[in-house]
Amino acid sequence: MKRHLLEAGDLDRDDATLVLDTAAQIESALAGREVKKLPTLRGRTVVNLFFEDSTRTRISFELAAKRLSADVINFSAKGSSVSKGESLKDTALTLEAMGSDAIVVRHGASGAPHRLAQWVQGSVVNAGDGTHEHPTQALLDAYTIRQRLGRLDGVRVVVVGDVLHSRVARSNVWLLATLGAEVTLVAPPTLLPVGVGSWPVQVSYDLDAVLPKADVVMMLRVQAERMNASFFPSAREYSRRYGLDGRRMGALPDDAIVMHPGPMNRGMEIAAEVADSARSTIVDQVGNGVSVRMAVLYLLLGGAPDSE
Amino acid sequence: MKRHLLEAGDLDRDDATLVLDTAAQIESALAGREVKKLPTLRGRTVVNLFFEDSTRTRISFELAAKRLSADVINFSAKGSSVSKGESLKDTALTLEAMGSDAIVVRHGASGAPHRLAQWVQGSVVNAGDGTHEHPTQALLDAYTIRQRLGRLDGVRVVVVGDVLHSRVARSNVWLLATLGAEVTLVAPPTLLPVGVGSWPVQVSYDLDAVLPKADVVMMLRVQAERMNASFFPSAREYSRRYGLDGRRMGALPDDAIVMHPGPMNRGMEIAAEVADSARSTIVDQVGNGVSVRMAVLYLLLGGAPDSE
Amino acid sequence: MKRHLLEAGDLDRDDATLVLDTAAQIESALAGREVKKLPTLRGRTVVNLFFEDSTRTRISFELAAKRLSADVINFSAKGSSVSKGESLKDTALTLEAMGSDAIVVRHGASGAPHRLAQWVQGSVVNAGDGTHEHPTQALLDAYTIRQRLGRLDGVRVVVVGDVLHSRVARSNVWLLATLGAEVTLVAPPTLLPVGVGSWPVQVSYDLDAVLPKADVVMMLRVQAERMNASFFPSAREYSRRYGLDGRRMGALPDDAIVMHPGPMNRGMEIAAEVADSARSTIVDQVGNGVSVRMAVLYLLLGGAPDSE
Repeated sequence: MKRHLLEAGDLDRDDATLVLDTAAQIESALAGREVKKLPTLRGRTVVNLFFEDSTRTRISFELAAKRLSADVINFSAKGSSVSKGESLKDTALTLEAMGSDAIVVRHGASGAPHRLAQWVQGSVVNAGDGTHEHPTQALLDAYTIRQRLGRLDGVRVVVVGDVLHSRVARSNVWLLATLGAEVTLVAPPTLLPVGVGSWPVQVSYDLDAVLPKADVVMMLRVQAERMNASFFPSAREYSRRYGLDGRRMGALPDDAIVMHPGPMNRGMEIAAEVADSARSTIVDQVGNGVSVRMAVLYLLLGGAPDSE
Repeated sequence: MKRHLLEAGDLDRDDATLVLDTAAQIESALAGREVKKLPTLRGRTVVNLFFEDSTRTRISFELAAKRLSADVINFSAKGSSVSKGESLKDTALTLEAMGSDAIVVRHGASGAPHRLAQWVQGSVVNAGDGTHEHPTQALLDAYTIRQRLGRLDGVRVVVVGDVLHSRVARSNVWLLATLGAEVTLVAPPTLLPVGVGSWPVQVSYDLDAVLPKADVVMMLRVQAERMNASFFPSAREYSRRYGLDGRRMGALPDDAIVMHPGPMNRGMEIAAEVADSARSTIVDQVGNGVSVRMAVLYLLLGGAPDSE
Repeated sequence: MKRHLLEAGDLDRDDATLVLDTAAQIESALAGREVKKLPTLRGRTVVNLFFEDSTRTRISFELAAKRLSADVINFSAKGSSVSKGESLKDTALTLEAMGSDAIVVRHGASGAPHRLAQWVQGSVVNAGDGTHEHPTQALLDAYTIRQRLGRLDGVRVVVVGDVLHSRVARSNVWLLATLGAEVTLVAPPTLLPVGVGSWPVQVSYDLDAVLPKADVVMMLRVQAERMNASFFPSAREYSRRYGLDGRRMGALPDDAIVMHPGPMNRGMEIAAEVADSARSTIVDQVGNGVSVRMAVLYLLLGGAPDSE
């Protein structure tokens, strides 16, 4: 594996499979232990450098690092020297100088983690950058699909919603392609990126047409602050055409699963009865997120597998 | 003991006594140790889920969990996905899926911890919900009374102030009744709850009349934001009729103690000379709070007493 | 050493040298270890009590404490009971009662750490108070000079900028004098304190005149919020007269070094080419900050040197 995890494209098929396998091994190892913790990263420091609020992702990484016995520093850019005009580069060099071994970064600007990676010796993990990528989300989604369906190769995944602004969608498209799944995007034309023609996907505007052939339906979060923008239909119209309700769920094959990266807008892109159904993997995704992030930190920071 | 601690009524006399005895045992155990820490909850995760600011209570729980070697996640609902419209239920399921063993919750809505407890497998500890309850405050108060006076049975406790809005008062009333103490409430009529007639207490409007027979005077915090409301007398009038100053303290029996849950408004409900007097248990209450919360986490999470 | 570190004057020459030597020993000890952590302060609690935002300093102390295996509580005064009107004294007594062994305090009011130290049994470390002092910054600066130049005695240090408002300058002046260095202040007359005549320094208004005889140039941060005040020249004028650019750096003796406490305003008080040059110790200062703070906590909290 490379030293950083900046985008799904950093992982070839072997790397991605190694992450998923390592996550599974960590889960088994912890299941057999009284103390749900591995000593692998004792004395290592992981910094959560969050320029955007994301309690959910921050906690997931924080728990992953702590369960590997690392020390964790939470750095919210609000009220920090960043707001006093310090550059991202100086922030990075400061954290590195203090001995951080890995920086987990979320930033509103696409590409910020790549810049960071040029300046530091340690590892950088992209925890979401602008509308670009969120690679650990794609890894936990892949892990969840494999866990539920037993395979990724040839699995038919339908991704539904605001693909244009979704880093989750981007990372999933690339990782799923690497792992052999077949992705179909369903979105209003205004919410598809211009270059989608070059992506390894099929595109449809008709959710009802694709559901009967889907193994996985992945619903994207609608971001309320974008609902007023001109590229967006009304909330009601969106929900009617692209929301997953009980009726639509009924059109899925028997074994198909429903995914959502959270947090959900129940009643908007996903109905409560769908979110809480047996097909839903939403809670599993959250739990798998911690395991997959443990695997990523473990592999990047190079802990010896048998250290105790 | 039940799996959760949601209100004082969750504890019968044996349970409550067990918590107090366990807190005392933990204090002795730590006093004899070089390293002021127990390994009991290593590998367990305690989440502080605070929808209202309360640094004091959050730190007390954080220290309690860390001294039991648990990992602690602080989750302030501000700027979290909660503010993006995620429901309390989805937040709870998310924390549970990430492997939290206990959720310590403070919430502005009375009853929120009870809802939470319906959704999770782990333990929920109420760290204050609306104007309802704050059971660990009552436990630390009971612990402090027993420590100072040697008993709780038959102890005469006078609770003074804004009972109507006080979760501290509510939890104390029920726990003290369970433990055999006799409680008298003193408050302006407008600051007593409607149903107080059914509580196991006596009511008085005359502080000076009850002080000579009190073993314990528990002053409630005046919340400045309520001082302008119509049910409240002026600050000066309140202080004159319901404040505890040096003169009033002089009317207490020789061994009587003065309590306050903090933070204090010195000069309002309590005079500085009283707060800093030998009768005051205010600093002890804070220290005992950590011990009692260690006991609660220990008993709820079921650590084996002799694990090392 | 005294029980607290409140100002540079708390350290005589032996004390200051002990801190620097201890920091060096800690660095060597960690360099030889697989796990970059010492067990010295296990079971001890260090509270970071920050009334002003300073992510950089807070993280440095947090890492220092964690690498000594202490438990760390971060207490930001915003949204705390302090904002409900609790006094500094009651906050201090509360933290002490909860078992904090050391309080690291940053406060906007000069002298606040001294007040705190009168109220608590544990140790207080001043992490910056108003325009008064920031003693651990001076210690890390002294450590960095000694590391680069091999000595402090007789070293000629030029401190440039807004001395009037700089706690970094004050602490450095006193510590460097204690350690035998010769300090020259360079600032606009309006940015020098009234009593500077009694300080153990020389004063100059001509940066170009002093650079050729400097071993160390220490640039102070320009605080943008003060740039509009009447005692300050325009940004352009300031930069022209007091900024360190490549040309000026060329006037320094061959071995001279350039320091800055950070965060920097690149292009204002220091040019990017200077900040990133081989003379710059800016990144070293950050790293040394953690080591020096480990030494301070270690010496104040009295961990036995050979405990394991």
